[in-house]
Parts: sequence; C-alpha cells; structure tokens
Amino acid sequence: MSYAVWGWGSPEAAPKAADLEALAPIVAASTGIEPQPPETPAVLPELREPRCTLPTSLAALGSVDPVDRARHGIGRAYRDLVRGLRGQLTDVPDVVVRPASERDVVDVLDWASSAGVAVVPFGGGSSVVGGVEPRGLDVAVSLDLSRLEGLVEVDVASRGVRLRAGTFGPAAEASLKPHGLTLRFYPQSFERSTVGGWVATRAAGHFSTGPTHIDDLVESVRAVTPSGVWESRRLPGSGAGPSPDRMLLGSEGALGVITEAWLRAQPRPVHRWAASAVGTWDQGVAGVQAITQSGLRPAACRLLDPVEARLSGTRQTGEAVLVLGLESLRGPLDLETATVLEICRSVGLEIVEQGSRGEAGEAWRSTFVRAPYLREGLVLLGILVETFETAITWDRLPAFVADVTATTEDALRRICGAGSVGCRFTHAYPDGAAPYFTVVAPARRGSEVAQWDEVKAAAAEAIMAGGGTITHHHAVGRDHRPWYDRQRPDPFAAALAGAKAAVDPAGVMNPGVLVG
Amino acid sequence: MSYAVWGWGSPEAAPKAADLEALAPIVAASTGIEPQPPETPAVLPELREPRCTLPTSLAALGSVDPVDRARHGIGRAYRDLVRGLRGQLTDVPDVVVRPASERDVVDVLDWASSAGVAVVPFGGGSSVVGGVEPRGLDVAVSLDLSRLEGLVEVDVASRGVRLRAGTFGPAAEASLKPHGLTLRFYPQSFERSTVGGWVATRAAGHFSTGPTHIDDLVESVRAVTPSGVWESRRLPGSGAGPSPDRMLLGSEGALGVITEAWLRAQPRPVHRWAASAVGTWDQGVAGVQAITQSGLRPAACRLLDPVEARLSGTRQTGEAVLVLGLESLRGPLDLETATVLEICRSVGLEIVEQGSRGEAGEAWRSTFVRAPYLREGLVLLGILVETFETAITWDRLPAFVADVTATTEDALRRICGAGSVGCRFTHAYPDGAAPYFTVVAPARRGSEVAQWDEVKAAAAEAIMAGGGTITHHHAVGRDHRPWYDRQRPDPFAAALAGAKAAVDPAGVMNPGVLVG
Repeated sequence: MSYAVWGWGSPEAAPKAADLEALAPIVAASTGIEPQPPETPAVLPELREPRCTLPTSLAALGSVDPVDRARHGIGRAYRDLVRGLRGQLTDVPDVVVRPASERDVVDVLDWASSAGVAVVPFGGGSSVVGGVEPRGLDVAVSLDLSRLEGLVEVDVASRGVRLRAGTFGPAAEASLKPHGLTLRFYPQSFERSTVGGWVATRAAGHFSTGPTHIDDLVESVRAVTPSGVWESRRLPGSGAGPSPDRMLLGSEGALGVITEAWLRAQPRPVHRWAASAVGTWDQGVAGVQAITQSGLRPAACRLLDPVEARLSGTRQTGEAVLVLGLESLRGPLDLETATVLEICRSVGLEIVEQGSRGEAGEAWRSTFVRAPYLREGLVLLGILVETFETAITWDRLPAFVADVTATTEDALRRICGAGSVGCRFTHAYPDGAAPYFTVVAPARRGSEVAQWDEVKAAAAEAIMAGGGTITHHHAVGRDHRPWYDRQRPDPFAAALAGAKAAVDPAGVMNPGVLVG
Repeated sequence: MSYAVWGWGSPEAAPKAADLEALAPIVAASTGIEPQPPETPAVLPELREPRCTLPTSLAALGSVDPVDRARHGIGRAYRDLVRGLRGQLTDVPDVVVRPASERDVVDVLDWASSAGVAVVPFGGGSSVVGGVEPRGLDVAVSLDLSRLEGLVEVDVASRGVRLRAGTFGPAAEASLKPHGLTLRFYPQSFERSTVGGWVATRAAGHFSTGPTHIDDLVESVRAVTPSGVWESRRLPGSGAGPSPDRMLLGSEGALGVITEAWLRAQPRPVHRWAASAVGTWDQGVAGVQAITQSGLRPAACRLLDPVEARLSGTRQTGEAVLVLGLESLRGPLDLETATVLEICRSVGLEIVEQGSRGEAGEAWRSTFVRAPYLREGLVLLGILVETFETAITWDRLPAFVADVTATTEDALRRICGAGSVGCRFTHAYPDGAAPYFTVVAPARRGSEVAQWDEVKAAAAEAIMAGGGTITHHHAVGRDHRPWYDRQRPDPFAAALAGAKAAVDPAGVMNPGVLVG
C-alpha cells in the first residue's frame, strides 16, 4: 500500500532495492552528490474522515477509499513526491467522484454549488504546481474525469478530432492511428496526462517550435460550468469578439470542467533529419535565435547547457549541445538542412553528428521519457531534484539566464550546502525562448519541502525581476500564485474574477488556483 | 463640405463626374447592372447640440466641429457610405476627444465614468460593422487615438516593436523600414486603420496562411481601463493562466482603450514565387485544402469563384482562379513550388502562369487596394455593393458555400430584383477556410440601407445555420450583435459581461458592442 500514494508510474514500476543500489554510483558520478541510504516509503497514515457525503443520486460515483483519496490529493512535483513518500498528506479530497457522463458532471456541480463543496477537476493528476491538491479547502471533492474518455468523432477532411477530456495521451494516439492521424502532442507527462488537463493548463508538447502548444491545436472546447454548458463553435478561425476558447485555455478548473475538445490532428511526417552541434552556450543561443528567425520551424531545436548535457547523459565534454531535428510531410529536407547547418557554422557551432536519427537526440529523448521514473530513485536516495521553467525575449535572455542560474545556485549553496543548476531551452520562438532549469542538490531529510520552497522562491523572484513569466507550460496552480498575482495585470485579475463570479457564483470551482 | 462625411480616402480622392462617366459602362459590362445617373452627395445637415461638455481640464482636447463629429459617427460599411452620402446621420458623438497622452486617456475615462458618458474608441474609423457609431447611446464621446501614434521602441534582437495605438498602417511600416523590419500586416484597410484598431477588432492581414492574424503578432498589449492600466508582460510564450492579451484581442473597446502594443516584426522576404491556376470551384477547393494540409503556408492561396474572378478583373473566362504566392526569407522556393504545382495538377487545376510575380496576383492585388475607392463610384452610380465573410471547416465547406451563396442570391432577387454573389477565400487553414462574399445588386435609391440589412440578415441566418462564424476578421460591432449573441456560448457571454463589469463598473466603454 505504501507505494500507492507516490511515484510516477504504476506501483510495479517503482524502483526496487537492487535498482537503487545500481543507481547510487551513477548518481554520484553524474551529479557529484553523495547519495544517502535508500529510504523506504512510509505506509499511508489514516486520513481524516470525509467532511461531506454525496447525495444518494450521485453516491455510486463516489469513492472514499483512502488510497484513492490520497492519490487524488497530490500532484507530481518534487514536494509532492517527498510528501507522498513520507505519508504527509494534510490536504486530501473528502470524496473522489468519477462521473460516467457529462450529465453526471452537471449534477455534481449543481450539488457542490448548493452544498458549498469545492470541486477540484482531476485529469491525470500530473500537476507539478499544486493544481489538483485541495490545499486549505474546508471541504472538497476531486472530480476524476477518467471515465469520460475516448474518441467521439473524426472529421478526416478537416483533420479534426473530437476527444473526451479524460482521454490519456497514449489512448488518444491509439484511437487516431487507424485514421492515419496523430496529434503530435507529447508533453513529458504524455503517459499520465489527459486532453482536458492539457487544455486546462495550457500544456506544451516536446516539439521546440511551430504548433507545439495545446492552444494551437484547439478548434473548440466544451465545458460544464455551474451556470451551464460552455461550448464554442468548431471553426478554423474567427474574429467574433475575444476567443471563448482562449478564456478556457489555462483556466485550470476555475471556470468549469472541460468535458470535450475538438483538436487539430495531422498525418505522420514522412521525412526526418536529425543533428547535434556543440559549442559554447552563447554560440548555442545565437544558433537557436538565428534558426528560429530564419523562418524555419524545426521539430527539435533544443539547447542544453553543459550541466544539463551532463545530467541528461547527452554529452559529458563540458560543451553546450544543440539537438536539432527537422520533419516534413512532403518533400525532402535538403534545403532546410543546408540552412540549419550554415547557421550553425556561422555562429561557430560544430556539427558532431547528423542523419535520419541523431544519437544525441535519442539520448536526450530517452532521458526525457525516463526522467519522471528516474526521479523516484533520486528522491529515495536523498537527492533534491526539481525543475522550473519560464520564457523571455532574446534581448533579455543572456543576462536573464545568467542571473536566474546564479541566484538559484546561490540559494542551493545557502539552503542545501551544494547543488547544481542546468538550463535547456524547451521551446524557441523568433522573439525569444523558454529556458527550463533543472536543479540537483543534496536533500536534508525531513526538510526537503521547506528546502525546495525556499530555493524555488529565490528562483521565482529572479524570474519576476528579470521580466520572465512564472510559467511557460507548467500552469499556475497553487504553488505559483504569489508570483502569478504580481505578473498579471491588475485589471485582468479583476476581469478574471468577474468572469468567474458570473459562471461560478458559489465559488466552488477549484478555489485557490488563479482566483479566489 | 458635402464629401467630408463619406468616402474612403481624402475628399480629393473622391470620384469626379468624369470618373463616374467613365466608370458607368465598365460597371454595366462587369456586373450586368445598369448604373443609375450619378448622385451628388448631400450637404451635411445640422447636427443636434452636444449633450455633454468636457470638464475644463480636458476642454482643449475636444472638438464639436460638425464635420469632425459626423466623420466620427460613421464607419465604412455600405450602409455607412449611403448614410454619409445622404447626410443621414442620426447618431454622432457629442464631442470628439483627441488625447495627447495616455494620462489624457485616463482622465477622459475618469470623467466619463463619473458623468455617465459613453466612450467610443476611434482608431482609423474603418469599421464595417458599426463599431465606431454611437448608435442608440444617450450621450457619447468619440475617443480619437490619432495623436497617440508612432514607434516607441525597437528590440532588434527579438524583432519586437512597440507601437502606439493610434499609428496608422503606412506610418507603422515607414517607422520600421529603417530598422530593416516589417510587420507584414496588410489588412484591406491598411491605409485607414491603426495598430490599436487591429488589436481591438482581431484584424487579419491579406496573407492567406501563417501568422496573418494580428493575434499572432501581439507580444503584449497596454490598455487603459476605467479601473487602471492593463499591461501584460512582453513574452514570447506563457502558460500562466488564460492569456490577458487574448481577452483584449477582439474586445472592441468594451473593456478599455488600447494605447500601445508590442508586435512581432519580421525582415522582408528575399525570394518570391507567384502563379495562378484555373479550373472549377470544386477543383480549387480541393487544391487549397491539399496545399494547406501539405504543411505549406503560402503567402497567397486565394481562391476566387468565377463571379469574383470577373468582378475583380482577375479573369473573365468563367473559371475559378487560384492565386498562389510563396515567399521565403532564406533559400530558393523550388521544392515548395514543385509541391504546389504537383498538388494543383493532381486536383485537375491548370497552371496558367508562374514566375517571380504573377499577373493574376497583381490584378487581384490592385483590385484589393482600389476596392474601397471603387466602391464610392459604385455607390454614386446606384449600385449596391457590399461584402461579408465567415469561416468554416473543410467537411462542411462545399455545402455551406453553396447554401450561403444561394440564400444570398435568392434574397437579392427578392429584395433588389437582381444581383450577383461572388465568393473567394481570404484565408485558408489546414482545417478549413474563410469564405468572403461580394454582393453586387441594383440599389433602390432611398431604400439602400433597408435593402442591404435584409439581404445581410438572410445571409447571416444561413451562416449561423451552417455552423460558420458571423465574422472571420471584420469584428462584431453593433451590426453583428444579434448573430454574435447566438453564436457565442451563453456562459462565455456571462463571463465576458462579468469581466466588463469588473473593469468598467459604470458601463461607459463602447456600450452596444459585444456586451451591454
């Protein structure tokens, strides 16, 4: 039972004692941090009694199983892993509700609104910002959308696909494959996140450029609010007032529960080219900037600084690595390839490999997918490991990354006694990039959450001061609220609160995220 | 004085008697409609007394000159031209206010909020949907942003440019040219529209695909609301809650007054290729669909049906014409060209010309730019000429266009006794296109507005029934309200009203558009 409340994959995928023994020296070598003796996850403690009861008509949808409640009260951030490991679950939902139909969602919201019970929508539970944790709420249900899943409709002519909100990434792809389509949307949480979660959190996929945000893929959204169903027309484009979809994108459950979306799918690319280049960080930055500004939209244009290159196992030479990938639906990539290579050379980057598949790209991709699993082992070995991300325009980027890195390193030294900070670009744009930071430090057992919160606060202050965003694709949740509140324009905050009050007059929709 | 209240260009650009004499036979030949004897624009009648007075501190910013007031009370739709021509100006602002600074805007909104005076923001006054007309308002000022103009800042590294809201298209381009940059944003209203107007109305440029909506170019927006300044951070991307910019994009002055925006600029393209292909409408539709779904984003991919091809002077053979254009910042276009040509042939389209510049493209472009001027002549000759536009996914498109066309033709026969309807695609997407309809019919002098309103209503009903949007890039204004109210989700309408109430508690911001 103990593993049931923490970890990324299934309990069976959790690291065994032998795994940890093998991992320890690798960790020591790659991070320079001495692992601690492996920790054993705590048994789930007794939870407090549920403070609400579903009405009889909805009772069959509810679960008060302790593991179920515990797993729905915690996300997948480092602070969540540690708390799950220790069984420190102070805020869990009183009931987990699994609607079997949209009608059920309507009924749950009606009941919750009249009973004053908070409703926290739950997709895959992969939030790393406290989005699914009913933190500080008197009484709350977790609304698990997993039964509202599957492909509803395909429009092959327009390449539109209508998916229910509870559909997980792999299921979505499997359902589209027979139609020759793919969403080409692969967030790191792909296995453990859902269509509805992507829309609610403005998730981003792993492609570096082009239509890589879920925002770009959304054709229309259907949501249940306490005031009725909010469904936009399915349109390729519209100029009729502010976009209704863009108000739901990133709404994090504060306005309602997304139940379906029409998404733009694509055929699979036919041609592929991959390469990697090495050089200094500054050369890499110049290369990414020039490539995105050349009009190219490479599938991969991922710059790793030397720390990140080492931590991810991509390269150990102390150089920065630029992982490149081009894809095309039609026609060979010779011209794009030549342009990319020419740009790399012009900024002083050295091409170390190229072909239809790149080793650096494969190494990086492998780490990307395994990272959430690996993290479990690191946590058990007493390593503090976490990430945070932002975005910034090119003019400010060099000083900004240097400052955020230095501030975070300084915080690590002060708070953890040691540690390192790596940076990579997850996404690149003609006007800037999204730096993503990985932090590795020795954890002080029992104080990990406080340690990380302090480090994160220092980093967030540097991000705010430098003009960045508190999140590029991890959402706001509860963890980012203090900085989000400063980042957003005050009249916009008032407008959003006004919008919420209009559709959720009882204020029961995921209170604590974004507003309220 | 008579010309001062109508017409697209300056009074000097208005058609002369000799122009109209020359135009008449051309019109007869191209439309099949017999022109009426040229009409003489009416002298501006006496306007009612202003019903409000600016406070002393703001008095220097105000104008109650009748021509000034009249020109600010009318847009550029057919119904506006006719009413301007006849001097039928029932709703004009009481005062025209020209703030010289953002501080002035704040002061005007403060005064208006406390005095209960409606504020109608005015950029270039090129609205074709009643957006600038204080229709039905008891007392209103027109807030003309033309003094808040010019380039404030350029960030060459990120290709970001900060422009004041009152900057007109040509001035914006002229100011960017020394920096080697361009917005590449050319709505048909380019000469007569402003940065702030583009953002407030979600304007679209004339490029068929790619980043052609102002939405795509906006990096951040600064606006003055009655509750304070709303300014977003300048970011290449962000996932922090619903986008504040996307709430202002399309807000049509209902939330506040846009005063500045950071926009994404580009260098000028180096390589160009143009072609035109002919065939049936269905072949053209198949071609546009295949081209956009091939991953290409052609600058021009504009399908004209036979009526539109004839009316625009592009081709008189009774065939549909596909005007194609490719552009590139780097590298030749051979591969893209080959792909486009291959697709055209595969759907049965015949390429009739290709090269670095296309004649069909030039003919079309020339008409595009001249159209608003030409329309003045047509109106004086008693021709009803107007356009409307929408967007629809590919699966519905063929039946939708056929139905909207037939419904509109039927309405023309019923209401005008004759007339023709042409269709072209202004924009194309992988999941659909934006059909744009041109209507030409014999006007019944004195009843033109009623005639057109009835035709438009019939067309709008067909658009709504077919699943389209009431506007793809002309905004909602006052003319589209009945259909917009049906198109948008009810909870979204409530949310938008809640947002407006929060930032504009006195309800003075452009009442009548979108909400209120």
